[in-house]
Amino acid sequence: MHAAAAILLSVFVIFVAAQIGAEIAQRLRLPGVVGEIVAGCVIGPSALGWIQADSIANGTPLDVLSELGVVLLLFSVGLETRLDDLKKVGRTAFLVGVLGVVIPFALGSIWAHGVGYEWTKSLFVAAAFVATSAGITARVLQELGALSRIESRVILGAAVIDDILAMLLLGVVTSLGDGGEVRIGSLLLVLAQAIGFIVVIGWVGTRVMRVRGDWIERPLNPLSPLSITLAICLGLAFLASELGLAAIIGAFLAGMIASETRKRDELEHQTQPLLAFLTPFFFVITGAKIDLSVFASASALWMLLVVTVIAIVAKLAGGFLGALSLGKRGAAIVGVGMVPRGEVGVVIASLGLAAGVFSNEIYAVIVAMSLLTSIVTPPVLAWMLKRESV
Amino acid sequence: MHAAAAILLSVFVIFVAAQIGAEIAQRLRLPGVVGEIVAGCVIGPSALGWIQADSIANGTPLDVLSELGVVLLLFSVGLETRLDDLKKVGRTAFLVGVLGVVIPFALGSIWAHGVGYEWTKSLFVAAAFVATSAGITARVLQELGALSRIESRVILGAAVIDDILAMLLLGVVTSLGDGGEVRIGSLLLVLAQAIGFIVVIGWVGTRVMRVRGDWIERPLNPLSPLSITLAICLGLAFLASELGLAAIIGAFLAGMIASETRKRDELEHQTQPLLAFLTPFFFVITGAKIDLSVFASASALWMLLVVTVIAIVAKLAGGFLGALSLGKRGAAIVGVGMVPRGEVGVVIASLGLAAGVFSNEIYAVIVAMSLLTSIVTPPVLAWMLKRESV
Repeated sequence: MHAAAAILLSVFVIFVAAQIGAEIAQRLRLPGVVGEIVAGCVIGPSALGWIQADSIANGTPLDVLSELGVVLLLFSVGLETRLDDLKKVGRTAFLVGVLGVVIPFALGSIWAHGVGYEWTKSLFVAAAFVATSAGITARVLQELGALSRIESRVILGAAVIDDILAMLLLGVVTSLGDGGEVRIGSLLLVLAQAIGFIVVIGWVGTRVMRVRGDWIERPLNPLSPLSITLAICLGLAFLASELGLAAIIGAFLAGMIASETRKRDELEHQTQPLLAFLTPFFFVITGAKIDLSVFASASALWMLLVVTVIAIVAKLAGGFLGALSLGKRGAAIVGVGMVPRGEVGVVIASLGLAAGVFSNEIYAVIVAMSLLTSIVTPPVLAWMLKRESV
Repeated sequence: MHAAAAILLSVFVIFVAAQIGAEIAQRLRLPGVVGEIVAGCVIGPSALGWIQADSIANGTPLDVLSELGVVLLLFSVGLETRLDDLKKVGRTAFLVGVLGVVIPFALGSIWAHGVGYEWTKSLFVAAAFVATSAGITARVLQELGALSRIESRVILGAAVIDDILAMLLLGVVTSLGDGGEVRIGSLLLVLAQAIGFIVVIGWVGTRVMRVRGDWIERPLNPLSPLSITLAICLGLAFLASELGLAAIIGAFLAGMIASETRKRDELEHQTQPLLAFLTPFFFVITGAKIDLSVFASASALWMLLVVTVIAIVAKLAGGFLGALSLGKRGAAIVGVGMVPRGEVGVVIASLGLAAGVFSNEIYAVIVAMSLLTSIVTPPVLAWMLKRESV
């Protein structure tokens, strides 16, 4: 009974902190998500300590709520994304995705080697510079009602490609870190699986839904279209993570499939309360994971500054160069939208820590960088999009 | 990464099993909730084993999802309950609640003593016969659109009183089990806290909301009425469980408070998707906790039969006698509605196991009885309510 009360208290504290943070941020004309992340920082283990570090570790109930929150968020983003619109930006998105991986990876490994890591370890560190977190950008774009813009579609498409490349890269550097040789054969297999998954689900799935989407209305329960598409979302999120992709890629594809049915508007409407209840857990817990004590040492602070600048500049450059076909202003928006590393950078950093490649300091710096990029991006993106619409 | 995939798989399997179970049940003209519980039995550890016993133990992510599911369910039931309507049935509900505790407790302790338990342990066993699970009955009433009936209000009111009495009883028998004397003073304090909580929240809260309910619309976020009432729901659920009441009592009161605002219809509408996503976890996991291997031994099977019959007859008698003022037919509906023990019986049984008072066999029997009463009740209740409306 008492354990149940403790978890209810954490759920309550996180949920209320998110509401207060979002409200303050919005009154300061910042996106609500910034307020939720900062609220997480404030109540997290390294500040007030209302949320303990071991209660938000991987696999804990709060972590699972956070995971479900981001899965549902990307599902709802998928619902607002039509395959036909995405296809129109396919070439640009591909360029942005590839350059957005190559440039950060190159700069990151040069920096890591420069501060004294051997090359093998440098590549692992650099891998943490690579993956874009679609979750945070998507939420900002959604809040601003900008998901239908061409830049948004380029960013989301590029994030999908980005994720495939990051996963591949992680496969390479993990086998390097193990001291083994890179097995090209198994890497190609992983790549083929990932591409196969996205093509089959994204292309075949949307086609099937367009022609035979009525079956989701056949069960007796009036809410069945929602239940069935949520089931598809959970299933694809599982499949994606089983294939080594981020679970949110599967959720995004599920939303894209569901958006081809004629229940689309109803589904968009019904997912709003789900997002209101569950996404705060993702953003608050992301914030709570920031270890503020890193900032107590000047050398770590300096390292954090350098790493963050490299991470931002490299992604900006990749996104900007890749999206030049949209014009300079559009390319700049895409570049900024690609900056957040969020949870993906954190995941790679914790893999590095577990593999013994990362020291505690570089781990803390990489995590803080991932989160800093996520805090810095939303207001800049909002400012750029608002300035443009004036 | 792999742990995340495993939990997503469980979430997916439970969610899909619930949809299939509910659909089959509804096509057989049974309430959907029966199908969800049976689906849990089927995929649970003692049948197919798709869900492992340790993944649904207390405090696991799946257990927390299930807890949130039943909290939201009782919140939505509260949303459909007006204090003024409840007050009209106050006297009857009180009688039903008291008789529904006294009769099962008396019969249960006589039975337990009869099969060889000493009196102190018998009282503990009997405590597991007492508490009514509002969750299952509420869902059936909701599915049938019968929440506004006078019998429904009596049942829900009685369940609140029942819960207070069960908690008191548990306090008494736990201190008896410890071998200590019953401290009347501390028991009175617990009782006063519980009654104070319900009166303050239920009576003052609804009054405040009726006069000053507009503040929930003041934040910038258009979904803020939902977010604020959900925050109140989580907060009161925590407070209730901190006071030793079931968390769902707090959630129910939160819903009742929220129903006094003018956003009531909007809130009812917005909670539907939340229920569709989260309540299946509660019902499937309730089903998955049934240990079917108990049924392999004839003596345990016989004990289960006797215990279940006693539990049903005792509650039926208490509910029926208490509600005679509604007429015989109404009293019978109330009696049947009070039968399910559900999660409350399970909680008491596990406390007994932990305290060393229950053997493994009696534990399994009490849990199975709690769940059998939950499976048997919905079709009977649905049949009685449908017959009446013809």
